[in-house]
Parts: sequence; C-alpha cells; structure tokens
Amino acid sequence: MTERTAPGSKAQAIAAEVRRRIVDREWRQGDRIPDEAELAIEFGVARATVNKALQLLAEEGLLDRKRRAGTHVTVNPARKATLTIPIVREQIEGAGMEYSHRLIDQRSHPLPPEVAARMGLPEGAALIRLRTVHYGDARPFQSEDRWINPVAAPGAEATDFQRINANEWLVRNFPWSRGDMIFSAENADARDARLLGTRQGTALLILHRTTWNDLGPITSVRLAFHPGYRLIATP
Amino acid sequence: MTERTAPGSKAQAIAAEVRRRIVDREWRQGDRIPDEAELAIEFGVARATVNKALQLLAEEGLLDRKRRAGTHVTVNPARKATLTIPIVREQIEGAGMEYSHRLIDQRSHPLPPEVAARMGLPEGAALIRLRTVHYGDARPFQSEDRWINPVAAPGAEATDFQRINANEWLVRNFPWSRGDMIFSAENADARDARLLGTRQGTALLILHRTTWNDLGPITSVRLAFHPGYRLIATP
Repeated sequence: MTERTAPGSKAQAIAAEVRRRIVDREWRQGDRIPDEAELAIEFGVARATVNKALQLLAEEGLLDRKRRAGTHVTVNPARKATLTIPIVREQIEGAGMEYSHRLIDQRSHPLPPEVAARMGLPEGAALIRLRTVHYGDARPFQSEDRWINPVAAPGAEATDFQRINANEWLVRNFPWSRGDMIFSAENADARDARLLGTRQGTALLILHRTTWNDLGPITSVRLAFHPGYRLIATP
Repeated sequence: MTERTAPGSKAQAIAAEVRRRIVDREWRQGDRIPDEAELAIEFGVARATVNKALQLLAEEGLLDRKRRAGTHVTVNPARKATLTIPIVREQIEGAGMEYSHRLIDQRSHPLPPEVAARMGLPEGAALIRLRTVHYGDARPFQSEDRWINPVAAPGAEATDFQRINANEWLVRNFPWSRGDMIFSAENADARDARLLGTRQGTALLILHRTTWNDLGPITSVRLAFHPGYRLIATP
C-alpha cells in the first residue's frame, strides 16, 4: 500500500473498487480494463483521479499500464519479497541481545574453484579469507567463511577485522551494485558443529552471498546460521 | 542499471564518474554532494543532464535525493534481492525436466495453533488442507503441506487439485497483496523423508509462505525442498 494518497481519498476508494473487481475476477488476469475516460464517467470523478487510482494498483503490481496498449490486469503478478544485507551486529542488538564476534582466522589464501566460479575470478587468485563467528549474548548466532577481494574493497588488507567485523566494515564502506543470494540447507559438519556449538548432522540454514561493485566482486561469504534460525524475507 | 538512458550518453558518463567517486570513497556515505548547478559547471553540461545522472544513481540506491536537504551518498544502501512466487511446474519444466505432481490428501481440517497464528485466523477454523509432492522427471522436487482459506480463495472447495496443482491454481487466480516468506532448515522427519525419497535426518531447506488479499489470508504453505536444493534470490 502506498502512502502517497491519503486513505479515504477518492482515488483510494476507486482503487479499492478496481481491486475488488480483480480479486472477484469480474476482471480477469490478462483482461484489458476500460480506459480512464470510461472509468471517470462510471465513477463520476475527474480523469486525473482515475489515473491516480490506477497508478496505485500498478505500483501494487495488479495492473500493467502501457501507453498505447492500455491497462491490463497483470498475469501472474510477480509480487516481490525483498531481501537486504543486514548488519549482523544491528540484527542481534535489535533482538535485545549483546553482540560480540570472534575472528578465528584472517589470511591471504588462494581461491578454491567453487568460490572462484561464484566470484568470476581466476582459481588460485590470492584473496583475503576470514573466518568469524557472531554471537548474541555469548551464544553462537552465525558463522561466516568469507573471501574479500582487495581490488574491489581497497583497504581490506590493512584492516583489523577483530576490531570491526568484516560484515559491518564492508556494508558501511562498499556500496554494492549487484548481489547473488543462494539459500540451501546442510547437515552440520564437524567444523560447523564446533563453531555453532551444536551436534554434527544438525540441519543448518546456509546462505551464500556474493556482491559486486564497478571494480569487480567485493566479497563472497558462506553464512551458517544457528540451528532453528528463521530468516524472514520482508514483503 | 536502467534502460531509459542510452549507454554512452552524457548522463551515463556523469553517473559513472559520480559512482566512481562514491566507490573510491572520495565522497563517503552520508556526505552531501555538490548541487546540480555546481556539477553542471564542473562537467560542462546542462543541469538537466546532471539531474538525469543523479536520478540514475538514486534508482540504483547509491544516492538519497531530498528536495530541500540536497543529495547525499546513501548510508548502508539497502540493495534488495527479490523473491517471487514461482509456478513450480514452470520452474521444473524450465530446468528441462518433465513435471508431474501427486495429491496425497485433500480435506477440510481444523487449523492447528501455529498455522492459525501465521494466518491470523482463529485456531480450529475449518480450512482446506492439501498435501502434495511435485516431481521433476519422476524424482521428488518439493513436498508441500498447504492450507487454503476458501473465504479469500472462493472456489477452492470445488476444485480438483489432482487435475491442477494448488500452487498453479492459486497463482493464476488469486493475486496477492501481501506475503510472508520464512526460510529455515530442518532435519527430515519420517514423513519428509518418505515423501522426498531421502533418509531421515537429511538437512532440508524449508520455506513457510503465507499470502493475503483484501479478503484475508489466502494460503499458508510449508514447502520442503529436495536435499541439495539451492534457492536463488535474483537481484
């Protein structure tokens, strides 16, 4: 729902009626709806008001408006849920817990094939590899296995990631223009189990995330969330 | 990247230079950047061209433009990945496999507390419950445990979901205005294991999805994906 049009306004009322016709399938997916002039007469309002109402529904994804072809009811409207890249510290503190993190390892390391493929970089290229665990109230929240490309994130070599965690340093300093997120589930191996304080074999939600800017791939990270974690995609 | 401005145009070139300054941190997150008139002089172009360039970067999420406060470099730009609701049949066929599905159970059933909470309906309300397995080339792709609210999806009671699977019927007929998606991982229980042809304890990616329209909650579904499945959020 947009906030630009006051609730209770004429445009809102017309949008509600048009939405009802779509939901009740008086107007079906793919149908061309009457043009603005006809609707203005039917509803007894100005054409501009109809235009505003239809614009609201187009923003919701219910209508497809094209200058020449007219307005159609969207076929299979691809409503989108959004996924952002959070700052883990803020996420944990937002849940009322005390944040801490532990940097387990920080070194230059040659890229293994699967990470190289994900980042579009040559296998064996030397990147910065970090292993970190994030905690909420001293309980493991997520572990991360991260590769940072100093070409796209200059300054990474000289940064002490025990002082500021890499997630926050990257989000604050390197705006990204493209990102891939891949969700999967894995049975915890010995390392996952140790870092997250759980048993081997426990089902873990895994997120592989890779981001790019104009200079190339910035970072690729495998996040393993603590058992029972639920990741919510906000609408 | 937007398609409205021709690549190689003056506005694109200016946008690239401004993007470079942001990426190289000559202009840092939160900084107010010079105003359009100054940039027009610096770049030797019309103010309208600068306006177009800044608009491109605002659409990318790199700049925050406010009428009175001027243009600032976005702090922690929340670039969004999108998640849509796919038609499973198309997803499977798109991967070059033959689609089939099996309806295991379709009946009216009282809502258990956790699903009632998710849908915002009273516990014990009678909804339609479906259990379905979707197959690609006869191998289990995902199992679904679905509740349909006939108030928001009229006609569901009379529909034969063996003929058309519920996912496709709902996506094609009931546009949604709000949706929740929650990702988690679970160790397969005996039922999951049987339906997906895997061993108990195998880590499964689970998606709980609930959608609404103006008439109320349409459906709430728990999807369990086959082991090894990777769900990609497209940028």
